[in-house]
Amino acid sequence: MYVILVYDIGERRVGKMLKHCRKYLNWIQNSVFEGEITEVKLKELVIGAKKIMNEEFDSLILFKSRDQKWLDKQIVGKELSNIDNFL
Amino acid sequence: MYVILVYDIGERRVGKMLKHCRKYLNWIQNSVFEGEITEVKLKELVIGAKKIMNEEFDSLILFKSRDQKWLDKQIVGKELSNIDNFL
Repeated sequence: MYVILVYDIGERRVGKMLKHCRKYLNWIQNSVFEGEITEVKLKELVIGAKKIMNEEFDSLILFKSRDQKWLDKQIVGKELSNIDNFL
Repeated sequence: MYVILVYDIGERRVGKMLKHCRKYLNWIQNSVFEGEITEVKLKELVIGAKKIMNEEFDSLILFKSRDQKWLDKQIVGKELSNIDNFL
């Protein structure tokens, strides 16, 4: 399945969350990830994310699609390849 | 068409961008929007966004789908309704 993941996480937890999500998906913007993932791996991702998050303040949204072909992506501005320079 | 919009924008421009995107889509997370939009309105949104953005530093990603039914949304943590309390 194809997944888009976006989070809004407290500054203290964001580094850990970034590292966790990158284990499963491709990092495409500051707090946005995408990629192909199995149902089992996605469950693992969410369980791990919940351990990092403070669910009262932090938010994580997943958009799931059976196939990436249903989605068309358009990027405006800075290209993803620049992102890694900030870390 | 159904659209998910995510941006990563310099602090100085973020207020203006938020206001701009909310004219067209539903705000569901700090820098994430979604909603039904026509091709014409989406072009208008992107043209307006480009005027606000510094394209060297800022990034905007659009995921477009012909129909929302191809996407399944899952929210973990803070519910969207809390977001407006922060402004």
